[in-house]
Amino acid sequence: MSSSDPIRALVSQLSRLPGIGERTATRLVHHLLRQDRALLHALAESLVDVADHVHECPRCCTLTANIGRCSVCEDTRRDDAILCVVATIQDLAAIEATSEFRGRYHVLHGTLSPIDGTRPDDLRLQPLLARLLDDDQGVAEIILATPPSVDGEATALYLKKLLGLHGLKITRIASGVPVGGDLQFADKPTLARAIALRRTI
Amino acid sequence: MSSSDPIRALVSQLSRLPGIGERTATRLVHHLLRQDRALLHALAESLVDVADHVHECPRCCTLTANIGRCSVCEDTRRDDAILCVVATIQDLAAIEATSEFRGRYHVLHGTLSPIDGTRPDDLRLQPLLARLLDDDQGVAEIILATPPSVDGEATALYLKKLLGLHGLKITRIASGVPVGGDLQFADKPTLARAIALRRTI
Repeated sequence: MSSSDPIRALVSQLSRLPGIGERTATRLVHHLLRQDRALLHALAESLVDVADHVHECPRCCTLTANIGRCSVCEDTRRDDAILCVVATIQDLAAIEATSEFRGRYHVLHGTLSPIDGTRPDDLRLQPLLARLLDDDQGVAEIILATPPSVDGEATALYLKKLLGLHGLKITRIASGVPVGGDLQFADKPTLARAIALRRTI
Repeated sequence: MSSSDPIRALVSQLSRLPGIGERTATRLVHHLLRQDRALLHALAESLVDVADHVHECPRCCTLTANIGRCSVCEDTRRDDAILCVVATIQDLAAIEATSEFRGRYHVLHGTLSPIDGTRPDDLRLQPLLARLLDDDQGVAEIILATPPSVDGEATALYLKKLLGLHGLKITRIASGVPVGGDLQFADKPTLARAIALRRTI
């Protein structure tokens, strides 16, 4: 039916998104069709807004809609001495949500992964090295906050070797049984690590 | 962070869609951000295309992007004598996909439901009655293809009473154990109906 072309085109585009199959896409489109058409326009405008205005911060590589640097880099009350290196902007957002960290960030946009073919050149390492060489920024400590997964650990190890030459204090986020977590439900590697990395109190 | 406003706006709009929570919406947006920006524009254009061009067919009430009637209504090879009444355009698409039905359709856009508050006035009944009164269309049989659910059956019963006055043949789609289905796995109401509606062979 040629009549359904725009609907089919939209279904086909939505079903390319992760976790959305053709059935879900069809359901979404029919939901949208039952709404006010202004809502469809608003959603389209939001997409265009993101496409046109979101770019990588030239300093920390997070995504921002600011003209120039992101708001964390622009924030003068932040502690320049501590730099937290994260794999993704979602991880950055998760740390920001705790309101516990007042330093700066650097987003790698990935972790090293031989399986996925992510190599050092694919990460935002050059901007990171440039920041460390820039004396004005005065970084004293780097927190490696890549995830405690195989790839995340490999990335942390790689960064430790790479950045160790610069005479910086390099730390790694703690990994173990989650706060409020039950030991009996913790997975074996987590529990094993919690015991191996035990600390004197 | 004011920097993430366009991203947040998009996440918030996507998370209003059925079955998409804030986490899924965030994941989708970050997936989109990793793509070529042209893809975001293409998706936005598809949304606008649907918003601007999809409308209800003035005859059968299905959704179409045709100027005027939908392609089923425009198809001169269709059998005018048989009219299949469905609850939704998804149901229409499902019947079309079988390639077995060559008559016309009428889409009610819902079923009667005291719980959801869907009353006869909320369904496309006036256009249906107008079609039946129009002698040119020559409808002889109406197939009530509303779903075999409580609401769908109630709607079929209501339509039978409403349309019975017009001296038309009114039929109901068969309901029972699905083709290829196993009796032991059929649910009780389906199996009970399959026995109650048994036919001589």
